[in-house]
Amino acid sequence: MVEGQGPYGAIDDGAVLIRDGDIAFAGPRADLPDHEAAQTDQMGGRWVTPGLIDCHTHLVFGGNRSGEFEQRLGGATYEQIAQAGGGIVSTVAATRAASEDDLYASALRRLAGLKASGVTTVEIKSGYGLDRDTELRMLRVARRIGHEAGVRVRTSYLGLHAVPPEHRADRVTYVDLAVDDILPAAHAEGLVDAVDAYCEPIAFSTAEVARLFDRAAALGLPVKLHADQLSDGGGAALAGRYRALSADHVEHTTEAGVRAMAEAGVAAVLLPGAYLMLRETTVPPVELFRTHGVRMAVATDCNPGTSPVASMTAALNLACVQFRLTPEEALAGATRNAAQALGLSDRIGTIEAGKRADLAVWDIQRPAELAYWLGAPLLHARYLRGQPS
Amino acid sequence: MVEGQGPYGAIDDGAVLIRDGDIAFAGPRADLPDHEAAQTDQMGGRWVTPGLIDCHTHLVFGGNRSGEFEQRLGGATYEQIAQAGGGIVSTVAATRAASEDDLYASALRRLAGLKASGVTTVEIKSGYGLDRDTELRMLRVARRIGHEAGVRVRTSYLGLHAVPPEHRADRVTYVDLAVDDILPAAHAEGLVDAVDAYCEPIAFSTAEVARLFDRAAALGLPVKLHADQLSDGGGAALAGRYRALSADHVEHTTEAGVRAMAEAGVAAVLLPGAYLMLRETTVPPVELFRTHGVRMAVATDCNPGTSPVASMTAALNLACVQFRLTPEEALAGATRNAAQALGLSDRIGTIEAGKRADLAVWDIQRPAELAYWLGAPLLHARYLRGQPS
Ligand SMILES: [Zn+2]
Ligand SMILES: [Zn+2]
Repeated sequence: MVEGQGPYGAIDDGAVLIRDGDIAFAGPRADLPDHEAAQTDQMGGRWVTPGLIDCHTHLVFGGNRSGEFEQRLGGATYEQIAQAGGGIVSTVAATRAASEDDLYASALRRLAGLKASGVTTVEIKSGYGLDRDTELRMLRVARRIGHEAGVRVRTSYLGLHAVPPEHRADRVTYVDLAVDDILPAAHAEGLVDAVDAYCEPIAFSTAEVARLFDRAAALGLPVKLHADQLSDGGGAALAGRYRALSADHVEHTTEAGVRAMAEAGVAAVLLPGAYLMLRETTVPPVELFRTHGVRMAVATDCNPGTSPVASMTAALNLACVQFRLTPEEALAGATRNAAQALGLSDRIGTIEAGKRADLAVWDIQRPAELAYWLGAPLLHARYLRGQPS
Repeated sequence: MVEGQGPYGAIDDGAVLIRDGDIAFAGPRADLPDHEAAQTDQMGGRWVTPGLIDCHTHLVFGGNRSGEFEQRLGGATYEQIAQAGGGIVSTVAATRAASEDDLYASALRRLAGLKASGVTTVEIKSGYGLDRDTELRMLRVARRIGHEAGVRVRTSYLGLHAVPPEHRADRVTYVDLAVDDILPAAHAEGLVDAVDAYCEPIAFSTAEVARLFDRAAALGLPVKLHADQLSDGGGAALAGRYRALSADHVEHTTEAGVRAMAEAGVAAVLLPGAYLMLRETTVPPVELFRTHGVRMAVATDCNPGTSPVASMTAALNLACVQFRLTPEEALAGATRNAAQALGLSDRIGTIEAGKRADLAVWDIQRPAELAYWLGAPLLHARYLRGQPS
């Protein structure tokens, strides 16, 4: 997946030399430098790709919303579901009620799906606590996943995900709390790799998000943004102004927004699972992203409300089928470009000397199969920092 | 999933007694009759459903069409792909060139996806051979899967799937061959459980299919039909006239067709994977099926051209999201109604005394989760005729 090296940057009859968890050499086997190998793993003619990167998930949450899914298909309206305590509020309640161990255990089950689809790095957001204790607990669970669950984790603080029920009458107080209290506390505990927000008329305004982003900048934290999912709310432009790592969803982003992203080097994170589940009809402006050179990543958006998707290869399939990405673009979106969307381009996303030896080994004949199949088990092995896992 | 027993026919704190691979008792644990158990498996509070039934697949084929998938997303037209030897013709060529062992091995990999999603019975069609040797080879592979691969198999002879290249100038000769030669030969070898055809203007006419179905009737074989997928071609009516087990796809079936199906007890097999991959916009007439009492089944349609889907739970999700089935209807479509679509209602599809002990055990809190998640590993265990597998 190194750019500019032909289709997929593919190397026939290749070899990877790993030292202390890093890639020491990657290239044609014939060029493999002299070395003493403690261990040699034959790949048996299989394809090896960078370990996949799921750069946008809400993997940690209490409960699930299958009951609401069922009610909606049974004919209940959104109002009826909200009145019955459904919607994001129900996930907030279940997350607040869940212990750290509960949250860890339930996240691991979804993580199992991601790992089985080749994922070695996963981004995990807070945002179902919406109070100090629970937001920090979610982020601690995310860190614990990174330490104990065989996957690389990047956390994002998503305090501005929704206004919690107890602050519905005074949202300003909640924004103050999220910006001035929870974020600094989470940062002080080393729990925050990036700061995210949900910028949409039904969520937070660009002015509210700007307050948060100013604080993030003061703390030296990169930002990213849920932008323009349901309408063009100027999210992409805001992301550009703050030189965000990524603007995510971006179904309704206009050409001006795309330009702003391009100029600031903001990646577009496409989330085809939510598009499917919400039966959206406006696809993201893929052709504009291509024209203006905006890098496109693809992610599961794994979350209980709008994208209960726990397979990265499923996300690749949906990105191709629904958004018309090519399989190569989709795979770049799960490797090289996803690394950029996490600010990790120097460490992961391609198989190159100097990067971490995070690899996925596949039982496929050609890389397009990763996006072609839906639900077929394709993974042969995963390596995280050189260790099979 | 026994009908008329409340939501999902669910039994709280239930027990299943298995004797010689059959269900001897199923009901509340408190009602479990006196017995001597050679073995007792505790389910640990998990949900147990009938083993899932994938009642429409083309699981056995040579090669795959990921290259064509990639070309199409790269902008190639159907004409260009056809000129480059793509389309169904390429699968026919690859299948003809493949040995029985090749076909078996490649089908097993897709079957692994189905089994991981709880499938215990799979229907497998011929139809990529389109000559006598290869059609029989495909069906032998299907039988072998049933004998060796830990899954119950029903075969369908699908000789009228496409006109093979060598008969393009004289399709009548091919229909003669399929009807008068291949089908009787396959039947004589015990390879055919049902006879299927693709009835569509681009495939075979109702008159051609009627010829095949008359022969099937003479041989005492049940029939089923790919009907009204791309247009209303009278397929549902034809299926009614021949009292087919099922009419499959049926996106464009009109109310008259639905009535004909209802009167003849024809099941509707919905194939949401093909709908997704082809980006169809006309959904099957689900509300008419409900009104007229046509039983709806759901299947993967696993095939290399239009539905490279190898997960039954993915099919359930897509049936709910795209066709607005309720999760309970979707699960009935993968159990009770799928059994009917295969003529196996007396043996499988519900957990009842007298039926085969084909079971799926799930790590879920409620059955709606089977349709809610996409790509999450939910299966705890599978039992085929009472044996964990
Ligand atoms: Zn999100
Ligand atoms: Zn089919």
